[in-house]
Amino acid sequence: MKNTIGNNVAVTIFGESHGAAIGCVIDGLPAGVPLDLTHIQAKLDLRKPQGKISTARKEADQFKILSGFFNEHTTGTPLTMMIENTVHKSKDYEKTKNLLRPSHADFTAFEKYHGYQDYRGGGHFSGRITAPVVAAGAVCEQILAAENIRVASHIARLGDIHDEQLAADEAEISKQIDKLAGRYFPVFDEKIGEEMIAKIEQLKAEKNSIGGILETVVIGLPVGLGEPFFDSVESVLAHLYFSIPGIKGVEFGLGFGFAGSTGAEANDGFCCRGKRIRTVTNNNGGINGGITNGMPIVARLAVKPTPSIYQPQATVDYKTKTETTLEIEGRHDPTIIHRARVVADSMTAIGILDLLMSKRAADGLPHEINTNL
Amino acid sequence: MKNTIGNNVAVTIFGESHGAAIGCVIDGLPAGVPLDLTHIQAKLDLRKPQGKISTARKEADQFKILSGFFNEHTTGTPLTMMIENTVHKSKDYEKTKNLLRPSHADFTAFEKYHGYQDYRGGGHFSGRITAPVVAAGAVCEQILAAENIRVASHIARLGDIHDEQLAADEAEISKQIDKLAGRYFPVFDEKIGEEMIAKIEQLKAEKNSIGGILETVVIGLPVGLGEPFFDSVESVLAHLYFSIPGIKGVEFGLGFGFAGSTGAEANDGFCCRGKRIRTVTNNNGGINGGITNGMPIVARLAVKPTPSIYQPQATVDYKTKTETTLEIEGRHDPTIIHRARVVADSMTAIGILDLLMSKRAADGLPHEINTNL
Amino acid sequence: MKNTIGNNVAVTIFGESHGAAIGCVIDGLPAGVPLDLTHIQAKLDLRKPQGKISTARKEADQFKILSGFFNEHTTGTPLTMMIENTVHKSKDYEKTKNLLRPSHADFTAFEKYHGYQDYRGGGHFSGRITAPVVAAGAVCEQILAAENIRVASHIARLGDIHDEQLAADEAEISKQIDKLAGRYFPVFDEKIGEEMIAKIEQLKAEKNSIGGILETVVIGLPVGLGEPFFDSVESVLAHLYFSIPGIKGVEFGLGFGFAGSTGAEANDGFCCRGKRIRTVTNNNGGINGGITNGMPIVARLAVKPTPSIYQPQATVDYKTKTETTLEIEGRHDPTIIHRARVVADSMTAIGILDLLMSKRAADGLPHEINTNL
Amino acid sequence: MKNTIGNNVAVTIFGESHGAAIGCVIDGLPAGVPLDLTHIQAKLDLRKPQGKISTARKEADQFKILSGFFNEHTTGTPLTMMIENTVHKSKDYEKTKNLLRPSHADFTAFEKYHGYQDYRGGGHFSGRITAPVVAAGAVCEQILAAENIRVASHIARLGDIHDEQLAADEAEISKQIDKLAGRYFPVFDEKIGEEMIAKIEQLKAEKNSIGGILETVVIGLPVGLGEPFFDSVESVLAHLYFSIPGIKGVEFGLGFGFAGSTGAEANDGFCCRGKRIRTVTNNNGGINGGITNGMPIVARLAVKPTPSIYQPQATVDYKTKTETTLEIEGRHDPTIIHRARVVADSMTAIGILDLLMSKRAADGLPHEINTNL
Repeated sequence: MKNTIGNNVAVTIFGESHGAAIGCVIDGLPAGVPLDLTHIQAKLDLRKPQGKISTARKEADQFKILSGFFNEHTTGTPLTMMIENTVHKSKDYEKTKNLLRPSHADFTAFEKYHGYQDYRGGGHFSGRITAPVVAAGAVCEQILAAENIRVASHIARLGDIHDEQLAADEAEISKQIDKLAGRYFPVFDEKIGEEMIAKIEQLKAEKNSIGGILETVVIGLPVGLGEPFFDSVESVLAHLYFSIPGIKGVEFGLGFGFAGSTGAEANDGFCCRGKRIRTVTNNNGGINGGITNGMPIVARLAVKPTPSIYQPQATVDYKTKTETTLEIEGRHDPTIIHRARVVADSMTAIGILDLLMSKRAADGLPHEINTNL
Repeated sequence: MKNTIGNNVAVTIFGESHGAAIGCVIDGLPAGVPLDLTHIQAKLDLRKPQGKISTARKEADQFKILSGFFNEHTTGTPLTMMIENTVHKSKDYEKTKNLLRPSHADFTAFEKYHGYQDYRGGGHFSGRITAPVVAAGAVCEQILAAENIRVASHIARLGDIHDEQLAADEAEISKQIDKLAGRYFPVFDEKIGEEMIAKIEQLKAEKNSIGGILETVVIGLPVGLGEPFFDSVESVLAHLYFSIPGIKGVEFGLGFGFAGSTGAEANDGFCCRGKRIRTVTNNNGGINGGITNGMPIVARLAVKPTPSIYQPQATVDYKTKTETTLEIEGRHDPTIIHRARVVADSMTAIGILDLLMSKRAADGLPHEINTNL
Repeated sequence: MKNTIGNNVAVTIFGESHGAAIGCVIDGLPAGVPLDLTHIQAKLDLRKPQGKISTARKEADQFKILSGFFNEHTTGTPLTMMIENTVHKSKDYEKTKNLLRPSHADFTAFEKYHGYQDYRGGGHFSGRITAPVVAAGAVCEQILAAENIRVASHIARLGDIHDEQLAADEAEISKQIDKLAGRYFPVFDEKIGEEMIAKIEQLKAEKNSIGGILETVVIGLPVGLGEPFFDSVESVLAHLYFSIPGIKGVEFGLGFGFAGSTGAEANDGFCCRGKRIRTVTNNNGGINGGITNGMPIVARLAVKPTPSIYQPQATVDYKTKTETTLEIEGRHDPTIIHRARVVADSMTAIGILDLLMSKRAADGLPHEINTNL
Repeated sequence: MKNTIGNNVAVTIFGESHGAAIGCVIDGLPAGVPLDLTHIQAKLDLRKPQGKISTARKEADQFKILSGFFNEHTTGTPLTMMIENTVHKSKDYEKTKNLLRPSHADFTAFEKYHGYQDYRGGGHFSGRITAPVVAAGAVCEQILAAENIRVASHIARLGDIHDEQLAADEAEISKQIDKLAGRYFPVFDEKIGEEMIAKIEQLKAEKNSIGGILETVVIGLPVGLGEPFFDSVESVLAHLYFSIPGIKGVEFGLGFGFAGSTGAEANDGFCCRGKRIRTVTNNNGGINGGITNGMPIVARLAVKPTPSIYQPQATVDYKTKTETTLEIEGRHDPTIIHRARVVADSMTAIGILDLLMSKRAADGLPHEINTNL
């Protein structure tokens, strides 16, 4: 499915940057969930550009519910949320529409859609389409919260600046997550955050942009979500993460760090924590054999530097098929990593909720527990 | 879908390590493809353990076609391939079945399947289940080959040893791919390969194991495969890659290297190559906005060290819920990276063929090309 | 998928009768289709209640495009259409909300959604939700028209009154379809139509309602759409038809007439028509083995009488669980069959377009034609 | 999905009439179900041709489990069952392979698969492919039985002979179902069964065949299975039923009988039965608004007469494109209705189990029950 994902809970997204509206349809939600609309708006606000380090395009990003919500609760039928686009400076795009912006989707869009794509502001490829993803994710997060599952993301790295490390212990992680709540620039250590912001401002002054790494963590998970093969937790989450524009790498636990490790170093031994079985270390990022093991899920997402920079760049005119130079105008984000953070949260919440519902589907049937181990 | 994946071409896998058989059903293949069965078997043989650096379990891995193949061609109806399991030392597993092997799926399987999982040799979690994936992938590769699309993977890194770099130019890459053909240990530089093998043997002697990085490349691709969001090429391929047991990280192009880069460094400018538009560099690994841009797709997969090592490890007895120590017996691979290479090829071929067929579905309908750019 | 259907073209619907809006998202459309918006509105108008034989609820049913349409053509990304609800007499529903209307979904909605359903006007169960289906179907019809495929439906039977029979010959059927164009009350023979209308008015006067049979036909079809098993043309279309509220039976060709037939009577022999192979008769309604054979598809849909009648009916109060009598107020359709006709057209067009795109997906790959028959 | 169907439980089928084997993969089953293999074989035996009224082709139809079953219980991973084909009189088909059998899939298969289809005995279009459907259905039936849900089918009509009517009351229906158990010729009234058999034998003697109506009933259902739109119970079941070769009509409850009814006649009023709400009549066949209402589901399936008759029939030679006459040889069923009965049971069980698991997915999440009705 191109713009729909999920099995028991399915999210469909639609819209273009400069069209009438963007939005999402969430199908399969349980009925009777008392949604906190303020929380959804707060999440959307964290995605909105704010301050010097973001683009100057200011959209209200007020969502409106079209269906699926009645008397303050979900109805169980499709929940549709729409965000009207209020900024429509479409003419800006006319004169440069055939100049392919490097590392953007202009070229591939031309070829795939035979020239019919909405080229204004990236159209359906715009990062703006992640706003309805955030709205959908906020809904899923509220359901997960009722199961004591928490999701959060911080900027683990920006350029060469690294945030405080994620704690090993779930209780400590919980405190780190508390710190992030309501923080527009999502770092555990605010001092480091200031350094990062200074770096972003410097790059902006240099007409440049910068990449980084988002780290997403999920705590409070039951054991047994996910599947051995095509619906491994890693598969499901990576599928969602790689849908986010600008994400070019995803790793779980040690991730690429496994490449330089031996089994003796990397294996997570088991131990008893009260009545629960847990692992001593969490190099596998909470997932064994594609299935949650009760430890925190830890995922890291490589975010590429925003391709829109103000320096002259080599390009081609698609209509004339001639090489030329492009100087991008308008105002763009020197990095999107702080704004992408709620998108990462949301994709995670969507994926985890779907896996949770799938588990309930199977567990809801009568079965004995095998006591003859 | 838990064990089925794909839209226009769908692959279903089944089987356990010590059950009667493992296999796959490929649905949606075009009719009339003259399959080369020798090629399929050759791919399976590259996955089989060989020599000192692999497990001593020797399975014939002869595949048998159950349906969908008639008069040497595909029929267009489900192609089913089965591999019978011939090695059944099931009793080995009885005595240790409740001892959770670290970084394996034993614990999560117990919890998910309530104690009913087939625990022999990892059951459905066994790397053995990748054999039918290889068979399915070999079929898809043959169809892609008829479109001049080539897929290959090499060990880019093992521990701290790095293979020769992937070339930048498609013609050069093609020569590198030629070198890999038929090589059981897939490296571009055979000298480096010998170093890697020595390293593996050393770790084996130390009762240890080692991880690495597989690099997969696709050349000859048309522009326009993939979708802007949930079916981005990265999403589709990563979903498949993370289904492979032991893969914990996936990146495209610069991948995590983007984290330390600026836009000026990382952007891929456009240029003309004859009548074709290409990018000057390929930091995006052949994908812009989720869609192929005609440059080679470059993906890297982090392979974790085999969890089965012969050193004593901390574990828990699932039945008694007590902590204990496990010493794994039997013979296991000190690394699976060389064997996983054909699995990476296969997953790639499955994903690319499906995206290609989806493109044909849309392009097959009448549409003008927009000349009013 | 609960509110999404289709493979290469997928339609998602949303909305409730008295919510903010109803709508649809069509994903997977080819880019560059020059949509005729007037045609879409005309189809919506045929679904709207008109005259004495329909409900007095008057909705404007003006659709608004939210995404996927740019410079008068489809963009290839999700096409979203929204219809705002303008009539909101919600208070009417408060006092009777716990009285289960016979043969409506009130009871099942209560149980499925645990009391959280939007009960106003049937909520998501309202026939009103078929308006976005009509909009989506009109888009699909336009693409099919470019392939010379035509879809139409007439009232074959209302109560005991039968319309003129569908012609056997495709050219004759085409003339019959021409007659239906723009007719609000869709019958081939207008005299019979007047009888039917008189019957409807009579039943309305009697505070009663009436059922009938819609007959849907598709002409201009290529041979080879559909699949042998789960995606047989019958399966795909029946799935869609049975989604329409009030449809309780679906048959193809002779349908239930096969029950009293022998093979000698019912078999469709083959013949040559110029270079084409056709069948002498069309008892199989254009489908053999689940696949189109080039003859017209003929489907018949049993439409139940509108359950909302003004006579006292036995019911139960859901809250108090006591038996009582219900007298429905408001104004309702004495039959929906004439309005359901464009819904049948639309469901057919959605299904056929999806099957056509699936065929193109497979045929787009290189294959020889087997000449060694 | 062409040969895979279902969401939480998905069934994939494969095979051809004269290939190596036919089979199915059932994915998503709960772990720990103690399967009764004898029951599965008994169901397969009811599908096998027996006695004078069936084809003389005798296949053992012994199934073999390839995966997903361990220590007498399901493992929760794909359950694969295979039936090897033992009868391979392939040469019979060579000489007539280009002569299109009327009302068979020969022509459409040629066109769809470009001449590469396995034409022997109908290949993938053969009714033989329903054997794995029966095996899959038998597994699903066992799980439903543990929830006290029963499924059964009888021949409601053969030609002009009608079986005893289905009882109105669930307890009475249960007794009728008991009568069918183990009966090869599934009628409630054995006397009428004898008449039907005499009729079949007569038609066989006349080198002819005959159609009929299967009636399928499900009792013991919870309220709330199914969805308002695309996954209405009618849609899900009809999709499955129309996959069965030879089914050309499906109706629920009054079905086509609604066409001649008024709302006053057809509406099902509500009543209280102890603490349960039930309907006074069951004209809607247990389904309101696409969702089960706790009354028995009643579906009727129109079965067309077997197309293979021994009389000369008009046809076309596909290779030479010339009209000719075909006299079918070999031995064929004069009707398949009695054998199709277990296929109808199985399709029903597959569909109901999937809907049940979907319900559990949503109900498994925390929600209050709305007491503020």
